[in-house]
Amino acid sequence: MKIKTLTIVGVGLIGGSIGLAAKRRGVAERIVGVGRRPDTLERALAAGAIDEGSPELGRSVRGAEMVVVCTPVNRIARDVLEAGPHCAAGTVITDAGSTKAGIVRMVEGNLPDGVEFVGGHPLAGSEKRGPEFADADLFQDRLTVVTRTARTDAAALQKTAEFWTALGSRVRVMDPEEHDRALAMTSHLPHLAAAALAALLPAELRPLAASGFRDVTRTAAGDPALWSAILAENRANVLYWLQQLEHGLDCFRAALEAGDESALEGLLAEAKRGRDALGN
Amino acid sequence: MKIKTLTIVGVGLIGGSIGLAAKRRGVAERIVGVGRRPDTLERALAAGAIDEGSPELGRSVRGAEMVVVCTPVNRIARDVLEAGPHCAAGTVITDAGSTKAGIVRMVEGNLPDGVEFVGGHPLAGSEKRGPEFADADLFQDRLTVVTRTARTDAAALQKTAEFWTALGSRVRVMDPEEHDRALAMTSHLPHLAAAALAALLPAELRPLAASGFRDVTRTAAGDPALWSAILAENRANVLYWLQQLEHGLDCFRAALEAGDESALEGLLAEAKRGRDALGN
Repeated sequence: MKIKTLTIVGVGLIGGSIGLAAKRRGVAERIVGVGRRPDTLERALAAGAIDEGSPELGRSVRGAEMVVVCTPVNRIARDVLEAGPHCAAGTVITDAGSTKAGIVRMVEGNLPDGVEFVGGHPLAGSEKRGPEFADADLFQDRLTVVTRTARTDAAALQKTAEFWTALGSRVRVMDPEEHDRALAMTSHLPHLAAAALAALLPAELRPLAASGFRDVTRTAAGDPALWSAILAENRANVLYWLQQLEHGLDCFRAALEAGDESALEGLLAEAKRGRDALGN
Repeated sequence: MKIKTLTIVGVGLIGGSIGLAAKRRGVAERIVGVGRRPDTLERALAAGAIDEGSPELGRSVRGAEMVVVCTPVNRIARDVLEAGPHCAAGTVITDAGSTKAGIVRMVEGNLPDGVEFVGGHPLAGSEKRGPEFADADLFQDRLTVVTRTARTDAAALQKTAEFWTALGSRVRVMDPEEHDRALAMTSHLPHLAAAALAALLPAELRPLAASGFRDVTRTAAGDPALWSAILAENRANVLYWLQQLEHGLDCFRAALEAGDESALEGLLAEAKRGRDALGN
């Protein structure tokens, strides 16, 4: 795959990593970065993630064959709709947002003819922020979900899948609602639980927090604004899984209250089977 | 510090790592490993963690200057009490258990004159098991808690602290009850929460679990028997902190139900402050 001009809207860790990966792999000839903050654009340029930067979305997507929107989930639909009228026919717009249903719903049917949107979500990231943490191998062997609905253009879906594949990712096509239900469990609820645990730790106990605590709570260092938008956007699914988690904790509580060590061992064994199945 | 004979009771990951660290650092001239299972002793010998292995606790502690009991928390007190009468006067016995109050309570006052016990807990480990995963640097720059009560012998406490320091660890002296209250929060509750999350994941969603989920649930791969004993042993403290966690989750739930994104952001920001204070 060879894209003449790739425009990346939002050049933080994810957008920057897309730029680096596209360059390293010869996926794009020219990469334009769009960002509201001049210093972020400069850092993305310095990191080699983009060839030029601009604060003007409309002008920056004009000559693009492909546009990837990497802004926070509560801005993606707006950015896509703003970009649409400036795109040439044949342009494919995708995104890298952690939620999909709301974005796809807001965008579908609202773009000019010939400009197509296909939702994307690379399951890769970090609790870090900014293009200085961009990594050309961030998507290597990771999974990217690409969305399909009844209105999705087949050629645009194909091109979007090829794009993420060219960046090193495996691709799975999913319905946006199905994606959101799944990610509530695999990503959003664990983030919430990690945050609840991290918030509990009294300052005087910090020296006694070892690798276990650090692993469990690592994701809680993520950006609160990005994650509150994700949780709010996917709140019905997160609430469903939160209730399941509370039920799971209740089972542990009952076993503890009863002093039932074999019940505890059974719960832990079930958890271990699930975790072992994931590998490292 | 130079120990003539060090006896390690239980030569799994922790016992094996103590053996390797003691050898690498020249802390012990001769290391005797005690284990009930011949194949574990053989693997510990093969890993170079011990010089000789035996299933007989009594005979193996006879010539020891120092004894470290690294069996599961529900066996430690019994092993210490069984070893005591076979030890020479002047022998110091310590342990590596994740709980302290019950063990110290059962042991104190029940050892022969001149044989001293000082509880220990190196805050290091892994979800792995067995001497083949032993690591000579496991304790390097980690913290080991050493317990002191009104009955603790000052010279034995000093020697135990020197022992863990010689293995590369920092040492903190704590009351056993204080240790258990703290570790319920920093280790036992996070383990329980990680297990509850890991158990929730349906098999069909495993491909969608990325690094966030893997980090949050990593500790859930730990041994169910070891961990059920730890949770049962420290159940009052774990129940206290579990209630706090449930309260924290309730706050998230209320914010989600209200669709209050700024409340969510506030909760996440508090969590981030706590997690950032820990460093990586």
